[in-house]
Amino acid sequence: MLLETATYAARKSSLAERFAQTRAHTEALCRPLQVEDYVVSSMADVSPTKWHLAHTSWFFETFLLDQHEPGYRSPNPRYAYLFNSYYVQAGERHCRAQRGLVTRPTVDEVFQYRRHVTDAVLALIGRLDGDEAHPAWKIIELGIHHEQQHQELMLTDIKHVFWMNPLHPAYRAPLPRTPRVPPLQWHGVEEGLYRIGHEGTDFAFDNEGPSHRVFLDAFRIGTRLVTNGEYLDFINDGGYRRTPLWLSSGWVAVRDNGWTAPLYWQESQDGWTEFTLAGDAPLDLASPVTHLSYYEADAYARWSGHRLPTEMQWEVAARAFPLQGNFVDHGRMHPGTAGEGMSQLYGDAWQWTQSSYVAYPGYTPSAGAIGEYNGKWMCDQWVLRGASCATPSSHARLTYRNFFPSDARWQFTGIRLVEGA
Amino acid sequence: MLLETATYAARKSSLAERFAQTRAHTEALCRPLQVEDYVVSSMADVSPTKWHLAHTSWFFETFLLDQHEPGYRSPNPRYAYLFNSYYVQAGERHCRAQRGLVTRPTVDEVFQYRRHVTDAVLALIGRLDGDEAHPAWKIIELGIHHEQQHQELMLTDIKHVFWMNPLHPAYRAPLPRTPRVPPLQWHGVEEGLYRIGHEGTDFAFDNEGPSHRVFLDAFRIGTRLVTNGEYLDFINDGGYRRTPLWLSSGWVAVRDNGWTAPLYWQESQDGWTEFTLAGDAPLDLASPVTHLSYYEADAYARWSGHRLPTEMQWEVAARAFPLQGNFVDHGRMHPGTAGEGMSQLYGDAWQWTQSSYVAYPGYTPSAGAIGEYNGKWMCDQWVLRGASCATPSSHARLTYRNFFPSDARWQFTGIRLVEGA
Amino acid sequence: MLLETATYAARKSSLAERFAQTRAHTEALCRPLQVEDYVVSSMADVSPTKWHLAHTSWFFETFLLDQHEPGYRSPNPRYAYLFNSYYVQAGERHCRAQRGLVTRPTVDEVFQYRRHVTDAVLALIGRLDGDEAHPAWKIIELGIHHEQQHQELMLTDIKHVFWMNPLHPAYRAPLPRTPRVPPLQWHGVEEGLYRIGHEGTDFAFDNEGPSHRVFLDAFRIGTRLVTNGEYLDFINDGGYRRTPLWLSSGWVAVRDNGWTAPLYWQESQDGWTEFTLAGDAPLDLASPVTHLSYYEADAYARWSGHRLPTEMQWEVAARAFPLQGNFVDHGRMHPGTAGEGMSQLYGDAWQWTQSSYVAYPGYTPSAGAIGEYNGKWMCDQWVLRGASCATPSSHARLTYRNFFPSDARWQFTGIRLVEGA
Amino acid sequence: MLLETATYAARKSSLAERFAQTRAHTEALCRPLQVEDYVVSSMADVSPTKWHLAHTSWFFETFLLDQHEPGYRSPNPRYAYLFNSYYVQAGERHCRAQRGLVTRPTVDEVFQYRRHVTDAVLALIGRLDGDEAHPAWKIIELGIHHEQQHQELMLTDIKHVFWMNPLHPAYRAPLPRTPRVPPLQWHGVEEGLYRIGHEGTDFAFDNEGPSHRVFLDAFRIGTRLVTNGEYLDFINDGGYRRTPLWLSSGWVAVRDNGWTAPLYWQESQDGWTEFTLAGDAPLDLASPVTHLSYYEADAYARWSGHRLPTEMQWEVAARAFPLQGNFVDHGRMHPGTAGEGMSQLYGDAWQWTQSSYVAYPGYTPSAGAIGEYNGKWMCDQWVLRGASCATPSSHARLTYRNFFPSDARWQFTGIRLVEGA
Repeated sequence: MLLETATYAARKSSLAERFAQTRAHTEALCRPLQVEDYVVSSMADVSPTKWHLAHTSWFFETFLLDQHEPGYRSPNPRYAYLFNSYYVQAGERHCRAQRGLVTRPTVDEVFQYRRHVTDAVLALIGRLDGDEAHPAWKIIELGIHHEQQHQELMLTDIKHVFWMNPLHPAYRAPLPRTPRVPPLQWHGVEEGLYRIGHEGTDFAFDNEGPSHRVFLDAFRIGTRLVTNGEYLDFINDGGYRRTPLWLSSGWVAVRDNGWTAPLYWQESQDGWTEFTLAGDAPLDLASPVTHLSYYEADAYARWSGHRLPTEMQWEVAARAFPLQGNFVDHGRMHPGTAGEGMSQLYGDAWQWTQSSYVAYPGYTPSAGAIGEYNGKWMCDQWVLRGASCATPSSHARLTYRNFFPSDARWQFTGIRLVEGA
Repeated sequence: MLLETATYAARKSSLAERFAQTRAHTEALCRPLQVEDYVVSSMADVSPTKWHLAHTSWFFETFLLDQHEPGYRSPNPRYAYLFNSYYVQAGERHCRAQRGLVTRPTVDEVFQYRRHVTDAVLALIGRLDGDEAHPAWKIIELGIHHEQQHQELMLTDIKHVFWMNPLHPAYRAPLPRTPRVPPLQWHGVEEGLYRIGHEGTDFAFDNEGPSHRVFLDAFRIGTRLVTNGEYLDFINDGGYRRTPLWLSSGWVAVRDNGWTAPLYWQESQDGWTEFTLAGDAPLDLASPVTHLSYYEADAYARWSGHRLPTEMQWEVAARAFPLQGNFVDHGRMHPGTAGEGMSQLYGDAWQWTQSSYVAYPGYTPSAGAIGEYNGKWMCDQWVLRGASCATPSSHARLTYRNFFPSDARWQFTGIRLVEGA
Repeated sequence: MLLETATYAARKSSLAERFAQTRAHTEALCRPLQVEDYVVSSMADVSPTKWHLAHTSWFFETFLLDQHEPGYRSPNPRYAYLFNSYYVQAGERHCRAQRGLVTRPTVDEVFQYRRHVTDAVLALIGRLDGDEAHPAWKIIELGIHHEQQHQELMLTDIKHVFWMNPLHPAYRAPLPRTPRVPPLQWHGVEEGLYRIGHEGTDFAFDNEGPSHRVFLDAFRIGTRLVTNGEYLDFINDGGYRRTPLWLSSGWVAVRDNGWTAPLYWQESQDGWTEFTLAGDAPLDLASPVTHLSYYEADAYARWSGHRLPTEMQWEVAARAFPLQGNFVDHGRMHPGTAGEGMSQLYGDAWQWTQSSYVAYPGYTPSAGAIGEYNGKWMCDQWVLRGASCATPSSHARLTYRNFFPSDARWQFTGIRLVEGA
Repeated sequence: MLLETATYAARKSSLAERFAQTRAHTEALCRPLQVEDYVVSSMADVSPTKWHLAHTSWFFETFLLDQHEPGYRSPNPRYAYLFNSYYVQAGERHCRAQRGLVTRPTVDEVFQYRRHVTDAVLALIGRLDGDEAHPAWKIIELGIHHEQQHQELMLTDIKHVFWMNPLHPAYRAPLPRTPRVPPLQWHGVEEGLYRIGHEGTDFAFDNEGPSHRVFLDAFRIGTRLVTNGEYLDFINDGGYRRTPLWLSSGWVAVRDNGWTAPLYWQESQDGWTEFTLAGDAPLDLASPVTHLSYYEADAYARWSGHRLPTEMQWEVAARAFPLQGNFVDHGRMHPGTAGEGMSQLYGDAWQWTQSSYVAYPGYTPSAGAIGEYNGKWMCDQWVLRGASCATPSSHARLTYRNFFPSDARWQFTGIRLVEGA
C-alpha cells in the first residue's frame, strides 16, 4: 500500500496528534445529525453514517491492533463481520446491500466502539515509542488516510439520504453565494517527456506509483471548472435530448434514468434549484457544476467542442500550482470560486478525466488483504483528479487518483476541459 | 367499509375509551425499542415502526379529522404524502420501497404527531356527544380496527428487522415452552346449506359480507394446528426436495429462494433453532408451526394425505366454539397450546385456507378512498382464518378474512387440515 | 386424468379415426407457414410451432408408447429432453425460455418424428383390438384432447409471432366483417341448489370433477359478449387512466406495461385498427372484444356497473343452451356474431370468470407424471369458460375449465357480464 | 471513418473485385446452414445469420446507394427499420433484443435483398469509373471492411447458437489436432519513444489514428499464446475459487455465472471436452486457450506472475513480424500452432490487452451517422489486438483495435503475457 520507505518514528508525536485529530474530525462531522439519520442507506452506493463510524474503527482493529497489539480484544467479535467492507482476505462480511437494515449496535454503542479503538491505538503508539522500524507506523498512516476518505463519503452519503427524504432536511447553514467568475481561459503545456506519479517519502496510495515517464503532445487546459451557468446552456440547447452527443451506454443511462439535469437539480415555476447540504437553494450560476456522471461530463465536452483531460495532462498541468482550495475543513462546504492562473484544482469538485483507471507500469499491490485496497477495482472506472469541497484538505494531493464508474453522480464531480490534443 | 347500521352514539363513552386504549397499546408495543429500531424496513413487506405509528395517525387525520373537524390542521402538511399507504383517491403518496429511507420526522416528532391526532380525535368525540347519527362514529370505529391491524404488523415487522440483523437482538424476554400436545383428532361437520359471513350490528370489515348461503358436503376438520414436530417429519422425509408435493409456482419459490424450512428456522450442530421475538431458541416441537407460505402449507397437506380447509368449512366448523386464544395482549407472544374440542382457532397462528380471496356475492366496496381498504386486493391472494398470537384479542372474529399472497412467510401463519372432502 | 369409467374399446374404430384426424388437423394448421415461422418464440408464453408439433408427439411417446408398446424406440432419445413441457416426473427437460433457440431438429425432421409417432400409435390401436379394458385407450383419448389444446395455442402463438414482426405478416385471408349485433339483454337464473361439474362417461379433464352441489343466489347474465364498440366506450371514457376502476395489481400492470387498449389494437390517424390472423384491419365494432387480461375484463365490468360471472353461474346458465359457435374448424377464425337467447357461449372468446382456479371438493389428481396435467397449476389463475374461435369445435364442453393468470392477453379472451348478485 | 487521403480510383477494378469476393464469401459461410439456423439469436450479443446477411446489405444501401445513386430503391422500405444496427442518426431501428423473433423476410427473401444490393453497388462502381475523387470509393471500402467484421461474427454467433442447442450440431468437419508447442519464451523490447497507430493511405478504421508518439519502458513479451494445457493448470490449481486472483467485478461474474472454465469447455467422466465449430471434441492441450473473458485472462496473468500487455506494447513488439496466421479463409477454423519468433500474432485468438478502449490523442469521429461506427463505444471496454482464426485474413492489421467488455466470452479471445513492466 505505502510507497515511501522513510521511517515514521521521527514523526511519531505528530502521527499521534494527526490520528487523534482525524478521529475527532470524523465525529465532529456527525454533530448536525439525529440518531435516526445514522441508520439508513438511501441507495447501493451510500453507507449509513453509523457504518462509516464503525468501519473506520474496524480498519484499525483488523490491520493494526489484531496484528500488532497482542492483548487486544474487540468489544464484540461480530463487529468484524458487520463492518468489513470488501476485504475478502479479512474474512466473511455482511452483505453491502443490507448495511442500511442494521439497527443494532446503536449509535451510542458505535461511539463506544470508536473510543475503544481510538484508546487502543493511542496506547499502541505510546508503546512503540523509539521502535522506528516497526511496521505499525505505516498502517497507522494508511488508516488515517482511509478514515479521511470516509469523511468525504459521510458528507456525500448524508446529502443523498436527505435528498431522498421528501422533507429535504438541511445538514448545515447556507453559505454566501459565489460572485461572478472570470472567463474561461486556456493554460498551455508544451509537448515533451514528463514524469508522472508519486515520488518521495510522503504518504501516497499504492496506485499513485510507480513514478514513470510519459510522452505528451502539446495541449491547452482550462484555467477553471465549467460553471452551473455554462452547463445550463448545454441543457437549454437540448443537450439531454441529442443522441449524437452521448456515448452509447451514456444514452442508455439518460433514457433509463430519465436524466434531464445533474443530480440534485430541480426545475420549478421559479426556475432551477439545487439541493445542497444546506437544503434547497436557487441554482448558483457562478459555481462549478457538480454531481455529474462521466457520461454528462463527456457529452458536455463534446457539445462545447473540447475534450476531457487525460489524467497525465491534468497532473503535468497542475504540477506548477499550489495545493489550495475551498476545503470543507477550512469552513466551506460547497463548490467555490475561481482564482488566478490554474484555479479550482482542489477543493471544488473532482474532475473527470478520459483516463480509465488502470495500473501504472510496474504496479504491484501489497500482499494480503491490504492489497485489496486499490488494485481489484481497476476495471470499468474512470480516474478523477484534484479534490472536492468535501475532501479533507490534508488529504488532497497532486498525484491522487480517485476513481468512479461512468454513471456515479452522488460525489462532488465536475468538469475541466482541454483543447488542442 | 362498515356493514352494520346501528348507531354508535349509545356506545360513545366506550368508544372514546377504546380509542384511547388502542392508541396507548400501539405505543406500549414500542417500549422495548431503541430509536434506531424505528427507522428501517428489512424487506418490501416490512414497514418501519415509525411509519406504522404515523400512518395510523394519518388515517384518522385523513378520513376523520379532515372531513369532520373543520378547524383541524396537520402539524406538517407533508405528512399526508409521507404516511398515506395505498389510498390513491387520498392523493399522492411516498413510494413504499423508500419508507425505510426516511430519517425525518424523527421518532420524537412522530410521537408528537400521534399526540396531536389523539387529542384532536378525543376532542371531536366530546363535541359530537348526542349526535347519534353522525358519520364520524363509523370512521372512528374503523380507525380503531385499522390501528389494531397495524399493531400486529408492528410485531411481525420488527421480528423480521431483528432477524435480518446478524446480531439477532431480542424484542422481549423468553416464554415458558409449550407442554406436550394432544394427538390430532377430527371434528365432523354434516353436509348442508349454511349461512356464511358477518351479520348484525357489531363491527366487521366490508369484505366479511354480505352474509349468504353456501352448500357444503360433509367434512372433518383437525381439532388443533399442525406442530413444529410434525412439520419436522415432513422436512426429514424430504418434503422440500420432492417436486410432486408442490404447486408449480411453489416449486419455483422453493428453488429460487432456497427454502429448506419455515422462515426463522435454522439448523446448527446442536439441532434446529427458531428465531423468536425473544431471540434465538431451540425449536419447540409442541408449538404450532408458523411462518409458512401457502406453498408450504399446501405441500404439507398433500404430503400428509389431507387438504387445507376452505374458508367456508373453517367458518362453519368454528362457529360452535368460543372466541378465545393465546393472544399477545393476554401476556403471550408466541404460539400456544392446544386445548379441548376445536382448539387453537384464535391466538396461535393464522390458518391458510384453500379459498382465494374474492368478493362474496353482492359485495360492493364503499365509495371514495375508503373503498380501497379491501376490494382492490382481491387478486392472487389466499384467505387466512382465525387469528395469530400477535393479533389483539378484541380484533379476532369468527368471520374475519385475512389475506396474503402465496409466498408470504413473515406473518404468524400455520396449518389446520381437513379430510373427507 | 380421465373421469369416466366406461370402456373405450367399443369406440375403437372411431378413436383411430379421431386420432388420425386430430394429427392431420394439427399439420393442416401449418400450411400457411414458412420454415422460418416454425422456429421462434416471441415471448415467454409463446412456444414455437415446431415445438408444438414435436411436444404433442412426445406426449404420445412418453405416456402411451413407452408404457404400452414394448418394442417402441424414439427416433432420437434427446427428443424426450427437448420436448417435455413441464412434467417433472417424466424426467429432465429443456428450459422453457430457450425453446425458441433450437434450430435442430429441423422442421422436416420434426414432421418425420410426427409420422413416426402417428404410425406407431395407429399400429398400437390395431394391436389392442378387442382388449376393451386396456389402459391405453384412456391415454389415447387424453392425447387427442391434449393435442387439441395445442392446436389452439398454435394459432394464438403464431398470431403473436407475426405481431412482433414489424412487417405484420398475415396467417390467412380476411373474413367478412360482423354485421350489427342485437342489444345486450339479460338471462335470469333462479336461486337454488345446482349440480356443477362433469358427469358421465364422455371424456373430460380431471379438473372438471367431481360433480358436486353448489347453492346460487338468483342472478341475471348477459345474453352476448361485450363488443369492441362497447369496450371502446370504456377507453374513450378514460378507463385506462382511472385508478379506482382497477385492482391494485391491475393498475401496476397498466402502468408498467403502458396498456391503453387490448393487445393487438393500435390507434392511428385513420382510427383504431386491430391485428388479426389476416393482418392489420380496421377495428370491427360489432365483434366481441378479445385479447383482454383479467384486469381489463374486471375494470370494464366495474365501469359498466356489473360484475364478471362466477364459473358456477356461467355453467348453470349455459346448461340449457346448445354447444355451438363460430369455431375455426367450421371455417371462421375470428370472433363471430351474436344469435338468439344466450349466444356466443362457445366459439368466439373465452370468458373470464371471477372464480379462482382451485380444486373442486374431493378432487384428486391422477398418480404419476400425468397427474401434473392440471393440479399443480391451481394457484394465482382465473377460470375462463366457454371456448374461443380458435378452439377445435369437438374440444368445447359445458364443464370445461380453462385457466390463465390475471395478465394474460395473447389468448382470445373476452367479457360476459352478470348483474344482480 | 477513413484516415487515408489517397484516391481509390486507381484501385477501382480491384475494388469491384474485392467487393464481389467479400459478398460471395459472406454467402459461402452460410453453406453448412439449414433454413432454421438463420433465424435465432441465442443471447443478447448474438445476431441471427439472416440479420447479418441483411444488415451488411443495409449498410451499403444506407451509406452508399441512398447517398450516391439517385434512382436507387430498396426492395422494401421497412428493411431500413429492421436492419439498422445502432446508427441513431440513420433513423428509427428495430430493438436489438427482438432480432431473433423476425421470421419474415424469409431467408430466400434476404438473399434476394443481398443480390439487389450487390448488383446496385457493382453498377455504381461501373458508373463512377474515372471519377477518382468521388466520395463513394471510401464508403465502398468501408463497407467491405464492415462486412468482414460481420463474417467473423457470423461464425462466433452460429457457434453459440449450436452450443445452446442440446443436440450440439456441427458447423463443419473436424480439423487435425495441434502438435506439441514450443516452450513459452520472451521477446525483449527496449525502452524508448515509439510511434503508434495507423499511418499511410491503406484502409484503417478511424479509431486506429491519429498516429502519435508514446514512451514505453523496457518489457518482454511472450512469443506465443497461452495454451489450453497451461490454462488447465490454472483451473487445477483452484484458479476459479481463489478470490485474490480476481478483479472485484470479475469475482462477481465468476460467482453469478457459475464460471469454472472457459466458455465451451465441459468436464465429463472422460475428461475435458470443448465445443468447437466441428461439434464436441476432446480438449486440445496444445492449442491456444480461447473463449475467455477479460476477467479470466487477467486472473490467469496474475496467477502466473505476469501481466497482460498494453496495446502499445503489443503493437511495438508486433511491428517487426509479418502479418500471417491460421486464418479461416486459409482453410483453418480453430486456433493454430506456434511458429518461430513472435508467433500466433494473427489468426489464432484476439489477445486481451490491459488498455481500455479510449480515443487516441487528437481523435475525431466522422460527421453524421457513420461517425457512430467506433467513437460512441469508448467506455467500459478493453482493447484486443491481433486477429482470430475467424477473422478474414485480409482484415487483419498491425494497428487494428478490436474491443469488447470485460465479460465477453463468445469471441475467439486468448492470452499473451508480458513481464518486466
